[in-house]
Amino acid sequence: MARGSAGESVLHRHLRVLESFDAWHPFLTLTEIAEAAGIPPSSAHRLIAELEREGLLERLPDRTYRLGVRLWEFASRTPGAVGLREIARPWLGAVHERVRQHAQLGVLSGRDVLFIDRMSTRDAVVNATLIGGRIPLHASSSGLVLLAHADASLVADVIARGLRSYTDRTIHAGVELRAQLRRVREEGYAVTEGHIHPESRGIAVPVTGPGGGVYAAIGVVVPNDGASTHAYAELLHRAATGIARDLAVAYRPDVDERTHGIRSLVSGSRRSLEFLESLDNDPHDAGALPAPGPAALL
Amino acid sequence: MARGSAGESVLHRHLRVLESFDAWHPFLTLTEIAEAAGIPPSSAHRLIAELEREGLLERLPDRTYRLGVRLWEFASRTPGAVGLREIARPWLGAVHERVRQHAQLGVLSGRDVLFIDRMSTRDAVVNATLIGGRIPLHASSSGLVLLAHADASLVADVIARGLRSYTDRTIHAGVELRAQLRRVREEGYAVTEGHIHPESRGIAVPVTGPGGGVYAAIGVVVPNDGASTHAYAELLHRAATGIARDLAVAYRPDVDERTHGIRSLVSGSRRSLEFLESLDNDPHDAGALPAPGPAALL
Repeated sequence: MARGSAGESVLHRHLRVLESFDAWHPFLTLTEIAEAAGIPPSSAHRLIAELEREGLLERLPDRTYRLGVRLWEFASRTPGAVGLREIARPWLGAVHERVRQHAQLGVLSGRDVLFIDRMSTRDAVVNATLIGGRIPLHASSSGLVLLAHADASLVADVIARGLRSYTDRTIHAGVELRAQLRRVREEGYAVTEGHIHPESRGIAVPVTGPGGGVYAAIGVVVPNDGASTHAYAELLHRAATGIARDLAVAYRPDVDERTHGIRSLVSGSRRSLEFLESLDNDPHDAGALPAPGPAALL
Repeated sequence: MARGSAGESVLHRHLRVLESFDAWHPFLTLTEIAEAAGIPPSSAHRLIAELEREGLLERLPDRTYRLGVRLWEFASRTPGAVGLREIARPWLGAVHERVRQHAQLGVLSGRDVLFIDRMSTRDAVVNATLIGGRIPLHASSSGLVLLAHADASLVADVIARGLRSYTDRTIHAGVELRAQLRRVREEGYAVTEGHIHPESRGIAVPVTGPGGGVYAAIGVVVPNDGASTHAYAELLHRAATGIARDLAVAYRPDVDERTHGIRSLVSGSRRSLEFLESLDNDPHDAGALPAPGPAALL
């Protein structure tokens, strides 16, 4: 493994540069990147130049940098994010259409729930989730759903690291968290009322994946007005069942037993999918265009 | 720059591994990756292990690999892809609602148009575009729009490399391409009738970006039935004007002159954005949760 002076892999240093960008700081100068990544400016300069050459960073006319569209292009081929999102989108849209507040889809990522989609109306209540944003598992209804079906070791780890409070309603004790997780498993959905913001309430249910386990959580964020959560949970259960069914269809081993192929990533019109599948003659024939094929360098 | 034996940068070798995955092959074994990337199995093994450690690759129970959700997480912070897509989505949705076939959004990427969003009905006509997929500029209506407003050197380069034909209607001569690009600039929209598939017709218009130049193309793919294109072009122009206005608002230098901040990436309810903006106290304070902050390792 190629390592820098500090025994850190070259890849890890490249990723530290990319990680200095976040939703609040999508545009950074070289100096800001070096500072955020904790890398000397001379090294940062070299790493940035390499990343820019590969299209992972883009330099703007004002000499700031932003993350490059090529990162997004790789991301468009991730079955666990884009594939799931594409398959779930009509269902998420239907929930949002009914609820007219926020509807969102999250997956387990470390000790956080990572939200891969969210639909919101302009006048909806406060919602701390961003697409691509994370929230600690214990604080979010989607997080509770994911944690309720995760390894016991993850629950222990989450508790051991401390449960951050956002409001006086946030779950802050391990015993309370374990009781809530039992309740989620028994009732089949999670509710958090004012756990992140006093105005808002989250309700979420599990989505079963192609392998049979809990693959994601689908939820809503609605006003914390004391109204019954039952109707929301019912609606979410119907959507989760639909997503699970569509995931199972997409992952059905049509062609051979292992390769799930394009339908695990792509939704489209029936005739487009047939056309696109007909293009797959040679596994990696870059000439088989139109295709997303191995990306040309930017 | 850290380089392997062939004088190739380490980063470039990592990216070759990631590039072996495409929409047709989202799941690959180590052997398949080594073959597709043209890397000896022993080196592939080492590169894959590093990528897996960083969450850029994920190993499944059946020992195949897929691209990791962490790639998608980086991608969620790209203003030129996700930010544009979030801002354009209500407009794209409105176009799709009216047209009930395919509506899509593309950006210039090398000599291709890269599609960053697409909405389709189940029974729509054949459409070769994928979200995250590329089509050569000369073959697609969105591509013609982007090329018509690009540097003259790009037009020359596209022609010099040869214009691939998909049907007998695809533009295949440089002189014809230049004439079409002039027409696109004069009329403000591009039409391709049966250029990729005889059944389908593309119509696209330019979207003006926050810097004033052409930033993207928005288009539809509809049946190639000889009906007037005028109504489609009108509809697309209205959507493009809306997107341009929303981009300008999102990129308005609210806070300081350079940092455009969260609104260039994120759409949400008015109150959520205010709440999220209030969280931005310390530029890179990982404690300022809930936040998408520097990603924890998976």
